[in-house]
Amino acid sequence: MRPSGRAPDALRAISIEPGFARHAEGSCLIRVGNTEVLCAATVEGKVPPFLRNQGLGWVTAEYGMLPRSTHTRGDREAARGKQSGRTQEIQRLIGRSLRSVVDRAAMGEITVTLDCDVLNADGGTRTAAITGAWVALALALRKLEAARIIKASPLTGQVAAVSCGLFQGTPVLDLDYAEDSAAGADGNFVLTTDGGIVEVQATAERAPFTEAEFDALLRLARLGVAALGEQQRAALG
Amino acid sequence: MRPSGRAPDALRAISIEPGFARHAEGSCLIRVGNTEVLCAATVEGKVPPFLRNQGLGWVTAEYGMLPRSTHTRGDREAARGKQSGRTQEIQRLIGRSLRSVVDRAAMGEITVTLDCDVLNADGGTRTAAITGAWVALALALRKLEAARIIKASPLTGQVAAVSCGLFQGTPVLDLDYAEDSAAGADGNFVLTTDGGIVEVQATAERAPFTEAEFDALLRLARLGVAALGEQQRAALG
Amino acid sequence: MRPSGRAPDALRAISIEPGFARHAEGSCLIRVGNTEVLCAATVEGKVPPFLRNQGLGWVTAEYGMLPRSTHTRGDREAARGKQSGRTQEIQRLIGRSLRSVVDRAAMGEITVTLDCDVLNADGGTRTAAITGAWVALALALRKLEAARIIKASPLTGQVAAVSCGLFQGTPVLDLDYAEDSAAGADGNFVLTTDGGIVEVQATAERAPFTEAEFDALLRLARLGVAALGEQQRAALG
Amino acid sequence: MRPSGRAPDALRAISIEPGFARHAEGSCLIRVGNTEVLCAATVEGKVPPFLRNQGLGWVTAEYGMLPRSTHTRGDREAARGKQSGRTQEIQRLIGRSLRSVVDRAAMGEITVTLDCDVLNADGGTRTAAITGAWVALALALRKLEAARIIKASPLTGQVAAVSCGLFQGTPVLDLDYAEDSAAGADGNFVLTTDGGIVEVQATAERAPFTEAEFDALLRLARLGVAALGEQQRAALG
Amino acid sequence: MRPSGRAPDALRAISIEPGFARHAEGSCLIRVGNTEVLCAATVEGKVPPFLRNQGLGWVTAEYGMLPRSTHTRGDREAARGKQSGRTQEIQRLIGRSLRSVVDRAAMGEITVTLDCDVLNADGGTRTAAITGAWVALALALRKLEAARIIKASPLTGQVAAVSCGLFQGTPVLDLDYAEDSAAGADGNFVLTTDGGIVEVQATAERAPFTEAEFDALLRLARLGVAALGEQQRAALG
Amino acid sequence: MRPSGRAPDALRAISIEPGFARHAEGSCLIRVGNTEVLCAATVEGKVPPFLRNQGLGWVTAEYGMLPRSTHTRGDREAARGKQSGRTQEIQRLIGRSLRSVVDRAAMGEITVTLDCDVLNADGGTRTAAITGAWVALALALRKLEAARIIKASPLTGQVAAVSCGLFQGTPVLDLDYAEDSAAGADGNFVLTTDGGIVEVQATAERAPFTEAEFDALLRLARLGVAALGEQQRAALG
Repeated sequence: MRPSGRAPDALRAISIEPGFARHAEGSCLIRVGNTEVLCAATVEGKVPPFLRNQGLGWVTAEYGMLPRSTHTRGDREAARGKQSGRTQEIQRLIGRSLRSVVDRAAMGEITVTLDCDVLNADGGTRTAAITGAWVALALALRKLEAARIIKASPLTGQVAAVSCGLFQGTPVLDLDYAEDSAAGADGNFVLTTDGGIVEVQATAERAPFTEAEFDALLRLARLGVAALGEQQRAALG
Repeated sequence: MRPSGRAPDALRAISIEPGFARHAEGSCLIRVGNTEVLCAATVEGKVPPFLRNQGLGWVTAEYGMLPRSTHTRGDREAARGKQSGRTQEIQRLIGRSLRSVVDRAAMGEITVTLDCDVLNADGGTRTAAITGAWVALALALRKLEAARIIKASPLTGQVAAVSCGLFQGTPVLDLDYAEDSAAGADGNFVLTTDGGIVEVQATAERAPFTEAEFDALLRLARLGVAALGEQQRAALG
Repeated sequence: MRPSGRAPDALRAISIEPGFARHAEGSCLIRVGNTEVLCAATVEGKVPPFLRNQGLGWVTAEYGMLPRSTHTRGDREAARGKQSGRTQEIQRLIGRSLRSVVDRAAMGEITVTLDCDVLNADGGTRTAAITGAWVALALALRKLEAARIIKASPLTGQVAAVSCGLFQGTPVLDLDYAEDSAAGADGNFVLTTDGGIVEVQATAERAPFTEAEFDALLRLARLGVAALGEQQRAALG
Repeated sequence: MRPSGRAPDALRAISIEPGFARHAEGSCLIRVGNTEVLCAATVEGKVPPFLRNQGLGWVTAEYGMLPRSTHTRGDREAARGKQSGRTQEIQRLIGRSLRSVVDRAAMGEITVTLDCDVLNADGGTRTAAITGAWVALALALRKLEAARIIKASPLTGQVAAVSCGLFQGTPVLDLDYAEDSAAGADGNFVLTTDGGIVEVQATAERAPFTEAEFDALLRLARLGVAALGEQQRAALG
Repeated sequence: MRPSGRAPDALRAISIEPGFARHAEGSCLIRVGNTEVLCAATVEGKVPPFLRNQGLGWVTAEYGMLPRSTHTRGDREAARGKQSGRTQEIQRLIGRSLRSVVDRAAMGEITVTLDCDVLNADGGTRTAAITGAWVALALALRKLEAARIIKASPLTGQVAAVSCGLFQGTPVLDLDYAEDSAAGADGNFVLTTDGGIVEVQATAERAPFTEAEFDALLRLARLGVAALGEQQRAALG
Repeated sequence: MRPSGRAPDALRAISIEPGFARHAEGSCLIRVGNTEVLCAATVEGKVPPFLRNQGLGWVTAEYGMLPRSTHTRGDREAARGKQSGRTQEIQRLIGRSLRSVVDRAAMGEITVTLDCDVLNADGGTRTAAITGAWVALALALRKLEAARIIKASPLTGQVAAVSCGLFQGTPVLDLDYAEDSAAGADGNFVLTTDGGIVEVQATAERAPFTEAEFDALLRLARLGVAALGEQQRAALG
């Protein structure tokens, strides 16, 4: 039995509220159960030095948690003077995930930065960030298209993410914090809504796990991503 | 005429939503026009080293702006590796303001940290942070009292803050971003609702100003703080 | 009775020794009682990136305390690897104060940096720094004028600063360290010698204070700044 | 055809030279083709603060690349003042991988730190580091056992790692740098020699890939880890 | 001919003004020509962690240059966030030099920190700092003796320092900035007044130099240190 | 008697293995007894900003120790976020030493960076680094000459380095760690193989030493450098 009473293949309640960050070119506040992440896309007409004069765009991400988004207060990274390894890992993952569904040649030399800030955390913040960031990115690109800055959307696919894990030996979908901290294995699955794998990160938390268990997690993830994809499309209107 | 069409002595629309940060001992999301600040109070059963074994509590604050809370994206301070001088100035101001209405001996050796994070900025973020932080602090202390961790609330007063300035030569209340960036003088007033001055910071933006102008700003601030104080009390229920 | 035996409206002994920093375009060692600050102006023929090609000059300041300028040794900020919030607050204040009396269009695209380093501290280091920095700035601008790099001095006013506070309930002028650490309220007043307000920062140290008390502090500050202004002019010869 | 002429399922030449770091409790220089990583285990009789007084040991890792281990020189992280996100990601992965085959209760309150420093890089440095670190760890634990500091080895399994990827559409084992920089998908597989999955990280480099492709990579990884495991056991003698 | 017109074996004018830092346990402002260094000794009743409970004292130094002590303004190290390699080299040298003439067992577990801050620079700042720091140290130890905190002075010798170099092929004593920047070789000699060598650092600036040249520099240094030693004793009264 | 049983004027066993860093333009692994340093030269077609458009080249060095190159593990400088004063001192020394035997005008505007990384430490790492770095530099310049990027080698001399010290009162050559940590005086001598002095740094570890003792150390150093020079030439083939 899951602590939340959910069925093994049940997602938490999802909502995606577009436009939360008033100044951003695209944004949304995504809620996955009690996890809330504000995703904001910023468009700038330049690319990082290593890409200059190649006609390619860039998509990148930054991630942060408000100090009291968690059960006990965490240090403010700005005050500590550096981002943790975990933060950097997550923001690299978000950036890679979104770049996999963008035609960077069709973007032209612009950069879209996705800021994903966790307001409330209850497990699955990185996957919620990816799912929300795709919406913010799509909104920002739509705006560029409407303003005729780009001719056609460079989006080549729809990507969403969910975590799955082994909880008391059972594969379950969309771990919340209570499950995550007790899971025997934990995987983050970034998939396209048409079935492609963008990124898989699966980790044994205690003892190694089997290929069959891995396959069960991937199957659940497909279910979850299909449902998340519907919510994303609804948010885009 | 003010860009927003407000009368010189008109505040923007105010709302204070308590409990926004689910895990915090006290919190609120304060909205002052289009400025939105999430204020979260964390209680910890220890004090900083310089206060140990003196029987006194501590109240402190941290402040941050989400990178895209502003018109153009700002660097993430965690990524840059340090907090700006402006950020440090503001968080020191918030901390001092709240300590002025707390009986630290009555707190016992606990620390309350107020995290004030700006989700959307349209001028007046530091004063909104002070006004919201007082609510978060009051909620957290109420919780400690209910749990009988402290006997009586150590709150000795009610503090709120507002900015006033000279816009096109006229003293106006509660500057928004459009006014703030064009003001001839700009003051932040932290006052108690019973008329005391906690902190005044007034700055000539272009040319020095007169004592009469200063007095007019202070008069407007008193009006504003009275109205903000009512909203604070309403939020506490 | 003040610890120093001074009357409530008495400044400490002041001296301003020009030329102390041999290499600087303008400099002075200002002594206010036992507080000694070395102020040095550096002129550079360029402006910060955000001002380029606008025809405007820039005036900025940096502040530091020698580790043993104080009763007990403080950490060296260079060794700790960052400037404290207090240091940044003060150097921002010095820069703003001087910019209020400079016509930046008349400067042309040059930068004047004022380094204010405290050799001995006994209260009032930030206000002594502002008073001395105005002298260093005036000397540097005079040198530019003499060298015909600028046609006329861009100085539009004379600025000086002093702290006032409530000591044992009485408003007193020019707090020394013994008074400052026991004051009930503490204000730093940056004024022009012709009566304008450039910056006011007044803080309740324990309990909120009244508007009447604030007015008494401002009155004392005017007296002090008038006397400091005479010393500044004498130092310029 | 692979740039190196290897068959799709062929590992590069492997050698593991134990004892390279003279002072370390366990160490080896592992060579996988032209990739060379020095792995050194340090044993200390204490654990990090978050683990104190729980009777559990700790295994952690640090990773670095010598500036000229690569084709073009990289910045020295010590000179830049921080470790890159990539470095932190890798050292967290190495630590997790080794902890999955250690009974931390059987260790007692000691810490083993694995330093993995890349002397020459030609792709696969993180997987070589894991494979070599397991040898260094096993040697260090053997020494503790010999010295009767621990009663029995807390090693519960044997772990090794290898990268696999899609090169020109074909799944290949053990990517070298030429392949890695052109691969369509890239996975790092940390497996136990008896068939368990410890960690899988698979990333689409250009376009999403399919589950069938993923399965082919995992199959190759099993082959590779079996061969690497033999080399590890040989190195332990 | 030297730029200053001095004879090859002539020191610049020296003055040592004790007590410049009012709060320090010992201090002096040393002037060597136009080089001015403020040296302040701080006594603290504890030692660094690596020395605890060994009954030994510690003597250490920190060094800094005010930003405009030099011809062109240098970055403030506190603002840059780190001390340069040159600064660290110099402060390590000052510390070692003073420790060579102190009986640390006779000190007991106290630390003396020498802060050496350059107010004006014209070559030879590190050697002036050593010479002045010895005076500050001697004054501080005398104070401890007078207060009966230590029984007898732990000073075992008198140390002073001077630079010598090859200027246009000729060995000269006490290089000023004009000479230093054009010298063919440059040596800093830290000697005791009774003829011992504490530290020698000699560097070829352009081409290697000979042993005979080195010997000539050392001979000049002995002359210089003898004269400096007299000034030190005079300053101690 | 020396701990190693060596005669006072005996070097440890030396070996220099060229080409250890596969990607570097020149490199070697130098072994001096149990001290092992990997020296790698990187050539880049640009110079630092302060040298641009002057037609001069630049030679610089960086130095590091692997965390477990020493008896007890040292902090990784990249993880601590800064290089120690010792590290900076050493890398500045290596750079100066090599620049003394290079005709920078003959280099043209290229930079050679020498990375010296200590794999195993047993005393004398900085002198081994200089000796090895000269070989790496010579190999890199030879390669540039072969590729006709430069017309003739800008090398003007051959430089090597060794430490000497007073061990139990006796002058000895090439201190190992056991001797170094017990030496009464310790000198690092950077000499050219034709008898010139490039840099001398001699330090009294306990009490001041005499000029006669210094001369004895320098004599031993000449012997050592002659032998090291032969090894360098042999390594160049």
